[in-house]
Amino acid sequence: MRSKRLYVFLGTVMASILLLAGCGNLKNSNISSSGTKSTTTKSGYQTTGQSNSSMYEGLIENGKYKTSAARGLTVSQDSNTYNVKSFESGLLTLSKKEFSTQDYIFQEGQKITKTMGEAWLGRQSSSDPNGLNPKSNGKTGETTRNPIYIQQIEEQDFVQQNGSKYNLGGISVGIGLNKTDYYTKKAYGSTYQTDIPTDTMVAKGKEAANKVVKRLRAKKSVGNDVPILIGLYQLAPQDSLVGGTYIYYGVAAKGSDKITSWHKLNEANYSLPAVEDEKTGSSGDATAFSNFKTNIQSFFPNLSGVTAQTHYEDGKLKGMNITINTQFYGETEIMSFTQYVATAANKYLPSGVDIEINIKTVQGEQAFLARTATQKKFYSHVFGSY
Amino acid sequence: MRSKRLYVFLGTVMASILLLAGCGNLKNSNISSSGTKSTTTKSGYQTTGQSNSSMYEGLIENGKYKTSAARGLTVSQDSNTYNVKSFESGLLTLSKKEFSTQDYIFQEGQKITKTMGEAWLGRQSSSDPNGLNPKSNGKTGETTRNPIYIQQIEEQDFVQQNGSKYNLGGISVGIGLNKTDYYTKKAYGSTYQTDIPTDTMVAKGKEAANKVVKRLRAKKSVGNDVPILIGLYQLAPQDSLVGGTYIYYGVAAKGSDKITSWHKLNEANYSLPAVEDEKTGSSGDATAFSNFKTNIQSFFPNLSGVTAQTHYEDGKLKGMNITINTQFYGETEIMSFTQYVATAANKYLPSGVDIEINIKTVQGEQAFLARTATQKKFYSHVFGSY
Repeated sequence: MRSKRLYVFLGTVMASILLLAGCGNLKNSNISSSGTKSTTTKSGYQTTGQSNSSMYEGLIENGKYKTSAARGLTVSQDSNTYNVKSFESGLLTLSKKEFSTQDYIFQEGQKITKTMGEAWLGRQSSSDPNGLNPKSNGKTGETTRNPIYIQQIEEQDFVQQNGSKYNLGGISVGIGLNKTDYYTKKAYGSTYQTDIPTDTMVAKGKEAANKVVKRLRAKKSVGNDVPILIGLYQLAPQDSLVGGTYIYYGVAAKGSDKITSWHKLNEANYSLPAVEDEKTGSSGDATAFSNFKTNIQSFFPNLSGVTAQTHYEDGKLKGMNITINTQFYGETEIMSFTQYVATAANKYLPSGVDIEINIKTVQGEQAFLARTATQKKFYSHVFGSY
Repeated sequence: MRSKRLYVFLGTVMASILLLAGCGNLKNSNISSSGTKSTTTKSGYQTTGQSNSSMYEGLIENGKYKTSAARGLTVSQDSNTYNVKSFESGLLTLSKKEFSTQDYIFQEGQKITKTMGEAWLGRQSSSDPNGLNPKSNGKTGETTRNPIYIQQIEEQDFVQQNGSKYNLGGISVGIGLNKTDYYTKKAYGSTYQTDIPTDTMVAKGKEAANKVVKRLRAKKSVGNDVPILIGLYQLAPQDSLVGGTYIYYGVAAKGSDKITSWHKLNEANYSLPAVEDEKTGSSGDATAFSNFKTNIQSFFPNLSGVTAQTHYEDGKLKGMNITINTQFYGETEIMSFTQYVATAANKYLPSGVDIEINIKTVQGEQAFLARTATQKKFYSHVFGSY
């Protein structure tokens, strides 16, 4: 009787996102849940330590890192996996607006259980009164059916230390929305798609957000004392080479069971080089990347691909992830190439943005370079072996 | 008539090493040689730039990185691929003793061509008078045959800038020696092995080294004006989880066609955790690693493996490469885990050595941490996606 149409992508990306797919059966992943049981050998709390002040410390409870309550229910096989990473890391970035990394410690979501999440992502029905998606109208035409609006949900918790106690201090929930709802008419059948107008998508997202806030407030372990942040995330199309972005967020303050004010976000991700007449963000940035690519390809033979993901906020480039696939493998060639890439990247790529460059062969990662927005020089590392 | 028994490992590790396998046919790899042709759009020389002062800059000639003259003739499929990386990077490290990274620029070996290298790695015969390995005595018994001593050869060149000119300033050649010679009696047949006594292996290596020096001196483009460094490398066994090490090196000074003084090297690589009664280097270091491993495994569920390679020089730990395979994938879990690993690594792992930690899933590299011998804090990076 498990008809909730959730897929599990075994052994891959993401642990704690609840996600709805167009058609299929519900299955649990093969990840054992032993991680959530605490041992009695160590008691109390610890934290992970902090790599830098812009990252949250993670909470370790009773000697174990506490995984998400919804852990193991994961990604649809149909879905664009880029959506998965950016949905989760984007929520963490949003959370920093409300819960500072200095005052709060991160914990994987503990309040929305797997059962709850599954029910919420379903269609409303007599057996699933909490479904956030509309009742089926029995139709399967692309323009006639009731689409699935709410595709995925994730919770992140933020705790505060008070002496030796750690208390819940805030909750963030990401709600992933379909701009295009992909569905099949029968299991393993062809994929059809229903386009959802932006206005409708946003309205459905805000409606769901307020239901989620009310439901969380009704839980004794949440109550009225913590702010709840909700982010609305628009999924990228299935064939996209980048993930989607958050489009709105709002906070239900302590004591409030409603989000009264929504903040519009202006973010976008693009892939480079652009395919045909796809958008690429700023043409200046695309040109900079193109010059970089041309330069390294002309100097080093046998590069099989140089691609990038770019991230924009309010029209400004914020980050660029570059992947270079090479066909050469000599340790000395990789060393020379890595140094040359650093030189070319300094020369051609935009400054003041986060840049990450991965150099790969079919054998895996060979070298890595990174420069944060505030750094002047690239950090580089060639992976070694003894 | 290609009987030289060289394998090519298509599409994998290493470009410029010449390597001999016990039995098989000579084939060229599918790497195009276009990289070695220079274009005329750019002329003269450039260098790659330098990431730090302990690395060589690489030479770019006529607008292209000049690949090795022996490029494309690569590794035996039978061989332990760890041998390949450490053979090449070990030679570069040795070279720094003679050719400083400040005064010399690195260039892939240009003097030993593919044809020459193939001939040198063969057995001496009427069709291969330059073979560095002994004539076949016609026997195939493990203790009765003439083993193959010289398994692989690599050249690295070091050039010096003089105004706008770049002149050859030194050559390093690595000679890879079999402690165990693996061979088959027929193609694709069972593998047999001949053990070679250390004394014999070293004597054969030194003999080959002097022949290589003489042959290079005889080349007009080398002549008598540059020092030639030769490193003797002992290959690790095929089932080893680490590569071999250099055991001797010597330099034929300008004008000399002989290595008169050999320096003995005392280096060793080990893998951790040790399998049964294998050697592990210092027991203190093995314990430190074991404590680190136990600690992170107890705090984070679902780690599927924590292993290390260690490198010793003169009995002292110099470097440790740790690989952690996880079964979890959540971006936030990876972030928390990476921070925790940094904390645990600082606490448990030996200081004053180069440490590299790779965090991987089946999807590939997820995060990376590194600390050099002189640094106090780990650099860490979680691979992102937009």
